[in-house]
Amino acid sequence: MMIRRYDYGSPIFTHAIAIPQPVCTDEMPRFTVEKNGESVSFRVQMDEDDQIFGLGESVRGMNKRGHRYRAWCSDDFSHTEDKASLYASHNLVIFSGKSGVFGLYVDDPGAVTFDLGYTRGDEAVITSENGNCSAYYIEADSLIGAVKEFRHIIGRSYLPPKWGLGYIQSRWGYTTEEDLREVAKNHRERHIPIDMLSMDIDYMEDFKDFTWDAKKFPDLKAMIADFKADNLRVVPIIDAGVKLCPGDPTYDEGVEKGYFVKKEDGSTFVGAVWPGKAVFPDFMRDEVRQWFGDKYHGMLEAGVEAFWNDMNEPAIFYSEEGLEDAYAKADEMRGKNIGVYDYFALKDAFTGMSNSMADYTRFYHDVDGQRIRHDKMHNLYGAMMTKAGAQGMKSFNPDKRHLLFSRASFIGAHRDGGVWQGDNFSWWSHILLNMRELAGMNMCGFLYTGADLGGFGQNTTEDLLQRWLQLGVFTPLMRNHAALGTRDQEIYRFRNWEQMRDTLTVRYALIPFLYSELVKAAMKDDMLFRPLAFDYPADKRACRVEDQIMLAGSCMLAPVYEQNARGRYVYLPEDMLMIRFRSAEDYDCIPMTKGDHWIDLAMNEFPLFVKKGQVIPLAKGAECVAQVDAVKLTLLGWLEHGTAFTLYDDDGESTAIDLDKGLTLVDVQVKDGDITAKAEGIALDTSRIILG
Amino acid sequence: MMIRRYDYGSPIFTHAIAIPQPVCTDEMPRFTVEKNGESVSFRVQMDEDDQIFGLGESVRGMNKRGHRYRAWCSDDFSHTEDKASLYASHNLVIFSGKSGVFGLYVDDPGAVTFDLGYTRGDEAVITSENGNCSAYYIEADSLIGAVKEFRHIIGRSYLPPKWGLGYIQSRWGYTTEEDLREVAKNHRERHIPIDMLSMDIDYMEDFKDFTWDAKKFPDLKAMIADFKADNLRVVPIIDAGVKLCPGDPTYDEGVEKGYFVKKEDGSTFVGAVWPGKAVFPDFMRDEVRQWFGDKYHGMLEAGVEAFWNDMNEPAIFYSEEGLEDAYAKADEMRGKNIGVYDYFALKDAFTGMSNSMADYTRFYHDVDGQRIRHDKMHNLYGAMMTKAGAQGMKSFNPDKRHLLFSRASFIGAHRDGGVWQGDNFSWWSHILLNMRELAGMNMCGFLYTGADLGGFGQNTTEDLLQRWLQLGVFTPLMRNHAALGTRDQEIYRFRNWEQMRDTLTVRYALIPFLYSELVKAAMKDDMLFRPLAFDYPADKRACRVEDQIMLAGSCMLAPVYEQNARGRYVYLPEDMLMIRFRSAEDYDCIPMTKGDHWIDLAMNEFPLFVKKGQVIPLAKGAECVAQVDAVKLTLLGWLEHGTAFTLYDDDGESTAIDLDKGLTLVDVQVKDGDITAKAEGIALDTSRIILG
Repeated sequence: MMIRRYDYGSPIFTHAIAIPQPVCTDEMPRFTVEKNGESVSFRVQMDEDDQIFGLGESVRGMNKRGHRYRAWCSDDFSHTEDKASLYASHNLVIFSGKSGVFGLYVDDPGAVTFDLGYTRGDEAVITSENGNCSAYYIEADSLIGAVKEFRHIIGRSYLPPKWGLGYIQSRWGYTTEEDLREVAKNHRERHIPIDMLSMDIDYMEDFKDFTWDAKKFPDLKAMIADFKADNLRVVPIIDAGVKLCPGDPTYDEGVEKGYFVKKEDGSTFVGAVWPGKAVFPDFMRDEVRQWFGDKYHGMLEAGVEAFWNDMNEPAIFYSEEGLEDAYAKADEMRGKNIGVYDYFALKDAFTGMSNSMADYTRFYHDVDGQRIRHDKMHNLYGAMMTKAGAQGMKSFNPDKRHLLFSRASFIGAHRDGGVWQGDNFSWWSHILLNMRELAGMNMCGFLYTGADLGGFGQNTTEDLLQRWLQLGVFTPLMRNHAALGTRDQEIYRFRNWEQMRDTLTVRYALIPFLYSELVKAAMKDDMLFRPLAFDYPADKRACRVEDQIMLAGSCMLAPVYEQNARGRYVYLPEDMLMIRFRSAEDYDCIPMTKGDHWIDLAMNEFPLFVKKGQVIPLAKGAECVAQVDAVKLTLLGWLEHGTAFTLYDDDGESTAIDLDKGLTLVDVQVKDGDITAKAEGIALDTSRIILG
Repeated sequence: MMIRRYDYGSPIFTHAIAIPQPVCTDEMPRFTVEKNGESVSFRVQMDEDDQIFGLGESVRGMNKRGHRYRAWCSDDFSHTEDKASLYASHNLVIFSGKSGVFGLYVDDPGAVTFDLGYTRGDEAVITSENGNCSAYYIEADSLIGAVKEFRHIIGRSYLPPKWGLGYIQSRWGYTTEEDLREVAKNHRERHIPIDMLSMDIDYMEDFKDFTWDAKKFPDLKAMIADFKADNLRVVPIIDAGVKLCPGDPTYDEGVEKGYFVKKEDGSTFVGAVWPGKAVFPDFMRDEVRQWFGDKYHGMLEAGVEAFWNDMNEPAIFYSEEGLEDAYAKADEMRGKNIGVYDYFALKDAFTGMSNSMADYTRFYHDVDGQRIRHDKMHNLYGAMMTKAGAQGMKSFNPDKRHLLFSRASFIGAHRDGGVWQGDNFSWWSHILLNMRELAGMNMCGFLYTGADLGGFGQNTTEDLLQRWLQLGVFTPLMRNHAALGTRDQEIYRFRNWEQMRDTLTVRYALIPFLYSELVKAAMKDDMLFRPLAFDYPADKRACRVEDQIMLAGSCMLAPVYEQNARGRYVYLPEDMLMIRFRSAEDYDCIPMTKGDHWIDLAMNEFPLFVKKGQVIPLAKGAECVAQVDAVKLTLLGWLEHGTAFTLYDDDGESTAIDLDKGLTLVDVQVKDGDITAKAEGIALDTSRIILG
């Protein structure tokens, strides 16, 4: 077990590493280091069956081999399998195979490419394009060992309050207080569990950060209080770009203090986002983060307890300069009989101006008095906005955990907040992507994560939403979110809403278990979700499973992700109990032996597999987290002998988390065919445990 | 068994139906017919487990339930699962479930939507948007019965010459004679089997139809003759749009004769495609098809024997009118501080002008003296271009089968040529799409079909190409094709090219079998590829299999379509022999029992399943179709008793196909553990047959 740091060029401090490592000057093991102009590359040969894990939020399999990725935080909603970049940059890769387990973390906030068997199937080449980076070589006895080692040096993962595990209903398009109240009512009336309503850009006044439209929300404070009384919280969005709007305090203060990023000539950079022309806080600076974080206090004072940070790659729809270039192109073409290549160039001038490299090279950050061009540290921007928000929330309420999740991220931000998996689509393939990203993101420290259930872009269908919720039941961040212009996708909109409600009851019944496992994973630098390769490294079949995932130490998930399917194949690397859920009260417990199985799963059924010899606790369903009864639990499992596990619980919100204090031992004894279980302060029902 | 025709509005004659049916005046069975303004809808309730098949070339599963499709031939390369429309319009749906098997074919060349359990999960609504259509209600005892009944009235499917089953190497970017010779040489030198080189737009002079660039191809005739001597044929592309180019004979003749589509004011419609400004032959007119078809003669005289028709949805990148509107939008926005919604509108003005409804409503067709606006019969345009090409090739060489395949299609075109599955991407998910579309297209009569192996757009990888070729081995049209700007994807470019070559040897060894089954399928209105639901309707599991497909009457395919996989699950609806191919000479024969199996498949291995009790013939590998030895065959199968099958063969090119004459009975006898097999004129090796 070791981590060795090697520096190249002039590394930029990223906050990723929490425990600084000494710089090594010997040769990096295994990798050939090559310098080409500015860039520095790390090359390694691979055996035919070697696998690669990591890269957090990224497309394709959990085994990342066979594609070329590029760390470059991108506002790109079309997560097709060709994409090199999504919203996040998580520069960790871990190799596993014939010659053992080793990994590389490239701490570089600029672009880093990962050619993982793309150019040559038998070779991986990782390149820091600017050549300024700290590269951490990792070696371990196991995949999970490598992850824990890495997670140790990047510091403890963010933990949300317990109510952060509640179901969130969201939509770009909830415009008024009435909209929110209507959504809340429709859930509560039907007893569809829910804890939060998230508010997209519609709530703001002209898309100005830290404002709300007083016409649409005449008494925000009262609304929030009403919701709170009903165990509901609102989660407003905060965008990275600040509207260019003299008179708006955020804008005015930022201008006055010189807090917005500037161009080479010292003038403020202007790019357009939702508010039209906007300016961008230089989150790389301590004092700017402090200031921006403090801006959250206004809404916190109104009773808001949770936020999501968006558009923080940063997304830039266009700049004046980009627009001028496009107009110039149009002038050039006008009146000419333009051929298709000219026409494509014209079209590209108008489409290519969004999130363009031209804009990302137009402005600069101040880093400890040094001026660094944005593109050299682009991938850090969102993470630093998250840090700002986290600081602001912490300073407002130092003793309580804050709820915050972000779109863009960089390793380091895993200490400050959660991450949702960005603007996905209502595609069946995105159920699987959702699941696979859980594993990658857990490796990189992001535990509070999940995808937009039902899909953000495009139109959902009732079967898609139903199957997706069946995975969402297990993801710490559980949000149904959809884009403006797409089909309504609140559960109650659909013919089969009762089945979906029943699915949600399972989520709430699992909260004592999920909360316990989430906290333990964070405190122990562990993963909540692991590829099977991590738990069964000697099992060749298990190592290549891409549509199942381990949950905590005891369970395995195998979601249905195919339209019109009524079941699926599942590979059990050991004997397991299948709990086939229909609701928190209605489920089958079926012992299954190690090996391959087809399992029937009606539209309203979904499985959770529990390793033989282990038990998990299930509460009764509830309509909000606060009402989950964590002291009356049913144990589910398949046992030959006694077993035991620890269950963590606490007040759900204090920042002082003490594992030793919060853990309760659940002791299950089997004697002469009788099962008894004991845990201090918890009433346990063992009647569903299967012996054999 | 019955087909009943119902007419609504003023149906436009589409050539789809080859055997005219009488018009019924009673109520259509099962469907509720609703008129709303212009449109006419057909509504039917569905049971929870009912399935829907059909729709030919379209996204998602073979079971089409759960999505909203729209028949609208579209030049859209991004075949994501949300897409309602691809290049073709194949308006057949067949329902199968509790209340039996029935279907609907909407013979309407305008837009038709198929809401198949999208708006409501338990309801299908099919809508002719213009309300002018003949709707054919189909009822049958079985899915295959419904297909055969429908296929009977739409007429016999196109059959290519036998060499059309050869491997085609293609690329947008083979610019010169040297390029083609180089590609040919690289295949032949390495003994990679190949029969054709297809030529994309690069070969033309300024993208003018029926020209070739004399600088790049100084002696086309000699080149073609050289290739022919090496058993290679070239397949030039023909585009629908004719360059607006006074002096070019195609343009001049068309203008003189008034053959191009016109706007309302009688002026010729001008839209831009590859050549820049272009005009569009009115393929709806007999005399225009005759004229355009005759234009193929020039290249046929130079020795060309095969063509592909492209851009015939028709694709229109922009029109002058569309461009002016976009410029006007730019003028309107210029200088203003535009908000994001304005900005989106500006961007849309430039991106939305391609294949726009605005352009499709700008021009008209002459149909029997009647002027019909293009959008009312849009979906017929490509089919009529195919008809033109087919007529031209037939008139040049009436006794020989022609090789022609098209991008856009409508039912009816299945009699005139093949169809490739359009501009797909180098995505793993497109292997599966490729397979599923085979089934849908076969239902609609298109037998000579296949997808661009390795993927057209985006960059391929060696593993993707390898796995895709393993499916392509079985598709009648077998072409490796890639777009300009993407990675080179000829087999010989890759480290593991020898494995891919070995894969191709299996294709050639299977040609006697595939050719026989293709011809039989066409002559008997049968499908070459069928969903398992068609062959095992009583097997609930089989009915929902979406990643396996039946091939002919005896076989089943189960391709690997997952990156980094080393095997896959397969469901056997009955006992089958797995032939696990590595090459035509190297394969395992493994008897497997009915049920679920995991099968190991190394990167160079792929399975073909043969039903127990049946045998299939395998020739030796060959480097071109002409060299396939069809009279020395090895029989593969798993037998308890004797069996027999018929093998069709002929000269491979004459148009007079006589099943009775061409069929040879292969009689396999099993007696006392000995196997003997006889077939007139064929030497049979039975040593690989497994008894038991």
